[in-house]
Amino acid sequence: MGAATAEFGVLLDIDGVLYVGDEPIAGAHDALAELRGLAGDLRLVTNTTSRSRREVAEHLGRLGFDASIAEIITPAAMAVRHCEEQGHESVELVVSEGLREDLAALPTPSPSASVDAVILGDVGDRFDAALLNRVFRRLMDGAELIALQHNRYWLRKDGLTLDVGAYAAALEYATGREAIVVGKPSREFFDAALAELGLEQAVMIGDDVEADVGGAMAAGLAGVLVRTGKFLQKALPPEVTPTAIVDSIADVPAMLARIFSR
Amino acid sequence: MGAATAEFGVLLDIDGVLYVGDEPIAGAHDALAELRGLAGDLRLVTNTTSRSRREVAEHLGRLGFDASIAEIITPAAMAVRHCEEQGHESVELVVSEGLREDLAALPTPSPSASVDAVILGDVGDRFDAALLNRVFRRLMDGAELIALQHNRYWLRKDGLTLDVGAYAAALEYATGREAIVVGKPSREFFDAALAELGLEQAVMIGDDVEADVGGAMAAGLAGVLVRTGKFLQKALPPEVTPTAIVDSIADVPAMLARIFSR
Repeated sequence: MGAATAEFGVLLDIDGVLYVGDEPIAGAHDALAELRGLAGDLRLVTNTTSRSRREVAEHLGRLGFDASIAEIITPAAMAVRHCEEQGHESVELVVSEGLREDLAALPTPSPSASVDAVILGDVGDRFDAALLNRVFRRLMDGAELIALQHNRYWLRKDGLTLDVGAYAAALEYATGREAIVVGKPSREFFDAALAELGLEQAVMIGDDVEADVGGAMAAGLAGVLVRTGKFLQKALPPEVTPTAIVDSIADVPAMLARIFSR
Repeated sequence: MGAATAEFGVLLDIDGVLYVGDEPIAGAHDALAELRGLAGDLRLVTNTTSRSRREVAEHLGRLGFDASIAEIITPAAMAVRHCEEQGHESVELVVSEGLREDLAALPTPSPSASVDAVILGDVGDRFDAALLNRVFRRLMDGAELIALQHNRYWLRKDGLTLDVGAYAAALEYATGREAIVVGKPSREFFDAALAELGLEQAVMIGDDVEADVGGAMAAGLAGVLVRTGKFLQKALPPEVTPTAIVDSIADVPAMLARIFSR
């Protein structure tokens, strides 16, 4: 149309929106390029707690998507931001090995020292009583529990598997204190992503109606739900009404151009 | 005084009321004998999930208290009762070895079969991701979660330690379904104990204001709090007002004789 467009930012979920597994969504490469042209700024936001930002960027690259590490926002990045804001001087990491590089900026404690916070990610089969009791004692000594996400469970190759949210719930019940959740759908996550965009208007595009769309809309963003990825397994909960629902990311650029052109 | 007394039953917590660790409470031996004379019937009720009823009776015997196995009510006994009432045909046990003899009446599954219920007790350092995921999948396949108790934590020799309630909370969060709690302070526990007494009036005597006194009073019993055992570590929560508070079990027989004589 050639019309000027209002400045707006785009937050884009990755898994289930740009690809599923190792399969790009049809039309997703072109859509990402068009969105870069339309939006004032763009970030790729994912709730992964098993891959570093570098690994996410490399995986995107292998699937033909051009993305820089600086564009990728993960719960780990949000956790670093949170700890810096709080002035934490000693943070214990309970996370997968791959994630540690994204948390390298944080000061970690010597084994016997007290800590200001514990960051809890998915450590899979390493979750056991010894680990959980060690974290529990840290929390009872005053440390803050920071959960990278708070999902109930996920589908691993061998079957349904407890996710970080379940282990956080055990610690929350025992301590009587809620964890700080830094991933989607937390308000903190979207506020920080908006701050990075530095724009007043933004649209979140995702396949998870609660974590992506509901979280974004609660933080004042528009929320667009795509009918790919996780959407296929999840029923729409009645409490979230997306700003728009589209078949896939391929439909998003034209829709945003229509809404924001003037 | 020789006056006739109204028929009433007595439920008596054990640990912290009759003894602390391996030390009998002063006057407890005489008090237990007097209560047997005063009460229409008496049961010893404990929330232990690590000892069988036989082991509880033996421990009482070593400390000079005369008690039969049949007089002792534990969460395990309540779990058996619950499963029988529900007609469960296959129940998986996640409990300590010592407790299995009290659950021997229940039909246990072959490893690959589906189950109607999982009974969760304290398995200490055996709690790990593999165990919790196995239970989680059982629950997602429709099994009921029966928690022998729902305590947050306890003080083990090496420090504060997550208790059954914390692991149950993880499973409850992941499944979105609450566990059935068969120990104190559940209504089911006190109803079943009352049914065993077969008397209309009963008094619960314990050192835990929530689990013993609060639970009993919610089920319509009188609740007497003793200032021994756990009482020393716990502040009175404002929502529970015991029927009476006494220094120790030694003061209870005279008080009950006064109340129930006519």
